[in-house]
Amino acid sequence: MGRRAAIGKAAFLRHPGAVNDPDEPATDPQLAAFRRSIDNIDAALIHILAERFRITQAVGRYKAQTHMPPADPERETRQIARLRQLAEDADLDPEFSEKFLRFIIDEVIRHHRQVQGD
Amino acid sequence: MGRRAAIGKAAFLRHPGAVNDPDEPATDPQLAAFRRSIDNIDAALIHILAERFRITQAVGRYKAQTHMPPADPERETRQIARLRQLAEDADLDPEFSEKFLRFIIDEVIRHHRQVQGD
Repeated sequence: MGRRAAIGKAAFLRHPGAVNDPDEPATDPQLAAFRRSIDNIDAALIHILAERFRITQAVGRYKAQTHMPPADPERETRQIARLRQLAEDADLDPEFSEKFLRFIIDEVIRHHRQVQGD
Repeated sequence: MGRRAAIGKAAFLRHPGAVNDPDEPATDPQLAAFRRSIDNIDAALIHILAERFRITQAVGRYKAQTHMPPADPERETRQIARLRQLAEDADLDPEFSEKFLRFIIDEVIRHHRQVQGD
């Protein structure tokens, strides 16, 4: 049995009868193309988030040294208003942008509390 | 009263006794600098997320047309493993990267279900 036939057989065994089965990316070129773009974007998001947490960890150490509280509700209100506006301009659901920032800030405050030993 | 004195008085009235109060970004130049970087990063995140949802909305329409299910657990497993590795390489908590992807995917699946009218 040649290599192509072996691959074809393996795919068949994994997904009997599936042509457009999304578990098998190779069977649908359009879906595979979408997913390559999503994977590139996700790598960018992970690296930008890593940089954001590098900065907020520095903020956490600075707040602990200068005895500032970990959370800052006024700052958060300003951030949410700004991101909702940016989201609207970029055609992203503003509700989602707010949920997203809340999700990130909750993680940041958890880090700050760890630094301050609360 | 000169302009500087007026600003000084306004800051005093808003935050009596506060020098390092984080509600007042102008009073702490180091914190203000950190926050300008965070704000730039957040604008980048919002725009990248907007692009990600543009693609996943196209995926949603495509899946509805071709009668594919909205969720794809095998694809998600592969995505999580990949992002955890990228996160580790970028010095980001892999647990957080997994929570983050789950948060995004939940929103995507909600969109796909809306398109399919579930």
